Amino acid sequence: MSTTIKALAAFGAKEPLKPFEYTPGPLADGEVEIAVESCGICHSDLSMLDNDWGFSSYPFVPGHEAIGKVVALGAHTKRVKIGDRVGLGWYSNSCGACDQCLSGNQNLCLTAEATIVGRYGAFATHVRANWTWVSPIPENLDASKAGPLLCGGITVFNPMVQFDIRPTDSVAVIGIGGLGHMALKFLRAWGCEVTAFTTSDSKRAEALQLGAHYTLNSRNADELKKATNSFDFILNTTNANLDWNSYVAALKPKGRLHTVGAVPEPMAMAAFPMIIGQRTLSASPLGSPATTDTMLKFSARHGIAPTTETFPMSRANDAIEHLRSGQARYRIVLTNDLA
Amino acid sequence: MSTTIKALAAFGAKEPLKPFEYTPGPLADGEVEIAVESCGICHSDLSMLDNDWGFSSYPFVPGHEAIGKVVALGAHTKRVKIGDRVGLGWYSNSCGACDQCLSGNQNLCLTAEATIVGRYGAFATHVRANWTWVSPIPENLDASKAGPLLCGGITVFNPMVQFDIRPTDSVAVIGIGGLGHMALKFLRAWGCEVTAFTTSDSKRAEALQLGAHYTLNSRNADELKKATNSFDFILNTTNANLDWNSYVAALKPKGRLHTVGAVPEPMAMAAFPMIIGQRTLSASPLGSPATTDTMLKFSARHGIAPTTETFPMSRANDAIEHLRSGQARYRIVLTNDLA
Repeated sequence: MSTTIKALAAFGAKEPLKPFEYTPGPLADGEVEIAVESCGICHSDLSMLDNDWGFSSYPFVPGHEAIGKVVALGAHTKRVKIGDRVGLGWYSNSCGACDQCLSGNQNLCLTAEATIVGRYGAFATHVRANWTWVSPIPENLDASKAGPLLCGGITVFNPMVQFDIRPTDSVAVIGIGGLGHMALKFLRAWGCEVTAFTTSDSKRAEALQLGAHYTLNSRNADELKKATNSFDFILNTTNANLDWNSYVAALKPKGRLHTVGAVPEPMAMAAFPMIIGQRTLSASPLGSPATTDTMLKFSARHGIAPTTETFPMSRANDAIEHLRSGQARYRIVLTNDLA
Repeated sequence: MSTTIKALAAFGAKEPLKPFEYTPGPLADGEVEIAVESCGICHSDLSMLDNDWGFSSYPFVPGHEAIGKVVALGAHTKRVKIGDRVGLGWYSNSCGACDQCLSGNQNLCLTAEATIVGRYGAFATHVRANWTWVSPIPENLDASKAGPLLCGGITVFNPMVQFDIRPTDSVAVIGIGGLGHMALKFLRAWGCEVTAFTTSDSKRAEALQLGAHYTLNSRNADELKKATNSFDFILNTTNANLDWNSYVAALKPKGRLHTVGAVPEPMAMAAFPMIIGQRTLSASPLGSPATTDTMLKFSARHGIAPTTETFPMSRANDAIEHLRSGQARYRIVLTNDLA
């Protein structure tokens, strides 16, 4: 158990990260301490760093896509033991006793705790979390790239499980970035017919390489119109305000438009096209611990890993600027060199 | 087979109905002729009469909630025989060969024909339809009240089947009118815990009598707020522009807001509350022939009938005015006295 944890923290909104040490005290009941080997950077780390959602607290230690080894266990922990390689994502605890927790939907627990909200994240030598949310990493999964699976990966994988996406479905992904590129890989391995919506012809080749069978330039009104009644499932991974009704029109009857992107403006859904085609708009957060385990095993079995760029954690500020600039292809992993 | 059909028709938008006769010609392949005993009036008859949707043609004969007896059969009809008591609703034909038809979702056939769109409806001595959409009426169902089940009834019953509403669910209905009052009856018989959203305390007693366990005045912000995280399923039966996000907030995690009402303005759905609770907005039209049969059998078994007022068909104009005035409790049936 660490007496002092070395971390990187911002001391105010939008400020650069600086070295920061804290003393975590004894492990709580059910708590696991992980020595961080690597940690992905997610857009929500930036949102929290910038206090976009209004509930950040400072010093703010980012990091919620951690891979590492279990080094200490509090009382009454389960599922992992010292020395295990594990992952930690957005959630770090849940109540365990509400309807949602008891039915395996711990990700929907109304009092679920997030790794970087009101507590310190994994841009650090160590991070702690309740055992429930500490996921064993399968042996045959490339641990050096696995961090982003724990947040970005499970975010796009979860709706495939929740809504019974079938290998016979025709599916499409909006936004080929940090989330979308993983969605293409998962959906291809799932057996679906996969289309990538892009807004530039330059991303066409990349999308095909990532797993899409087809691409469709959604800025081309003709192409979008030709896709009327085409898809069983369209997954939006962007935070953009798009013309959602044109995507609804691209759904087959009984089709689903699903967003995991926190679209800022209300989505203006025309009722009539949804009614006549029995179409659905849905949305979801990250998955439960069980779904996360399923995703990790599926990834290992299919050799799926995020496409990553690597920075040493000590250069986290450079990595953050790289992500902010929109240049990351597609996900950044920080290798821990804090000590 | 009738050589002449006596009907009531409007000769222009919003005009009163007048006697109208037409010669239907020989029965088409697959077509069934029904001698109309009674016919409900639905709000969509008014919308079509008024050309609200821009695709009405005149002379316009309303009527798509017909009960009657089979009196003639074209070639290659199935499922019904001469003398059977049957019902006919919104749809009168579908292609039979598309993916939707072949998978039992004939109601989602892109070329489905509607009883009163581009053809003559059931405010008439006789009406015709393809056998697929002619539903046998169970012996133990009160035929004199059954007409509205064929359109209004199946509209609210269909989502219960499509989305696997469970007897253990907590459900709520927005709008206690022609559609909503049937939803309360069905959901009560389905075994659910049923709440009626009302906008006036005066409808409270009625809603409880119709099947609601509880009522909630949605104009009372406090009452609505207290209902946060309460419902698995909220069914909107109104055509009103409501504050949909306050209803989303009333859904449990994984809850569904479903509209069968053709809400005129786009529904402005905030993404974030849908994401964190994995909540859904969906919509649906009427049901398939198989779901309609299921609904009729369920109604017969549970003694469910719409609450109706009766007019002779010759007084259809008075009945229409009664419906327009919002005074109908809750559905009007015209008894056929045309001859």
